[in-house]
Amino acid sequence: MKTSAFERLQQHLKQLPGLGYRSSERIALHLLVEKPARLPALVTALEEAARAVRRCSRCGNLAEAEICDICSDPKRDTRIVCVVEQVPDLVAIERSGAYRGTYHVLHGKLSPIHGVSPADLNFESLRHRIAAGEITELILALPNDVEGEATCHFMTEHLPKEPAVAVSRIGFGLPSGGGVLYADSVTLKSALEARRNYS
Amino acid sequence: MKTSAFERLQQHLKQLPGLGYRSSERIALHLLVEKPARLPALVTALEEAARAVRRCSRCGNLAEAEICDICSDPKRDTRIVCVVEQVPDLVAIERSGAYRGTYHVLHGKLSPIHGVSPADLNFESLRHRIAAGEITELILALPNDVEGEATCHFMTEHLPKEPAVAVSRIGFGLPSGGGVLYADSVTLKSALEARRNYS
Repeated sequence: MKTSAFERLQQHLKQLPGLGYRSSERIALHLLVEKPARLPALVTALEEAARAVRRCSRCGNLAEAEICDICSDPKRDTRIVCVVEQVPDLVAIERSGAYRGTYHVLHGKLSPIHGVSPADLNFESLRHRIAAGEITELILALPNDVEGEATCHFMTEHLPKEPAVAVSRIGFGLPSGGGVLYADSVTLKSALEARRNYS
Repeated sequence: MKTSAFERLQQHLKQLPGLGYRSSERIALHLLVEKPARLPALVTALEEAARAVRRCSRCGNLAEAEICDICSDPKRDTRIVCVVEQVPDLVAIERSGAYRGTYHVLHGKLSPIHGVSPADLNFESLRHRIAAGEITELILALPNDVEGEATCHFMTEHLPKEPAVAVSRIGFGLPSGGGVLYADSVTLKSALEARRNYS
């Protein structure tokens, strides 16, 4: 039978993304019964990561130094900046290997319903980066939901007038490998609007 | 971009059952970026569970006291004992709500290939329980693989001669809701052998 410290651990595990009742129970049993040696190692890794990881002062990405690995990589083009909502979005783009510029993480999107106002976003530092002439091109990779669109609109309205920056929105349409049949109607609408000349 | 403390944490998470590269990355980002307040709470829950949880000295189940909740529950029939391989098996039977006896957890099954001998199992204490006259019925709920069968055979050979105990093997057959079509051949063999008079 399960004990109360066990159940408290299970409750904490269940709050993690992707874990439900069964998977959190499975992991708790694993750490307490099957492989108890892994528990202190996991605790150490959690504590070390919490201590070491902070925000890059330039772009808002995860960093272990003042500036993150991407911002300090001489092979990345720091003049091209992709604006994302959260760090996981950045990680997804990095995983694609399709981008050699740098990033700016807003850590949110405007949402009056959830009480997220412009002051809650990591936007002021982006304005400073643009005003300092560091950036020539901005790619807005926010989602195309209401909040994402509102955030894009707000940002373009409040960018410094000088110097001029080329602003683009990431493309929306059918995902690769997915045909029309399986696409939802919002995606189809985006895909139709994003049609390109084919000749 | 990800940092080295981040990657170490992800590696530790990936060792947990059911978590792969993506899900461990997702959880690490969740704990370090999205909900950093949950990380110390999780660490505390892990440490408390590791400190509090031990083996029940009677049956081998998880316990926070000398005797586990099931063994000390006056509503459970302590004379009927279900023998399981591991604590998760006990948890699964408890979840069914179909059993009101108690348990004995072997913490393994005989496996010469993996170097598991009788001395590695929590079997001696079961013999003592039987010899002390505490048990009248034993239900062997070990799997019907080679090791499970060997363990059942070994146990029945080495139970105390006195007092007599009724020993049964848990039933094998088609899972509920599953028809013949989707059953594997070992399950079908068990199901045919376990056929019951129907009239």
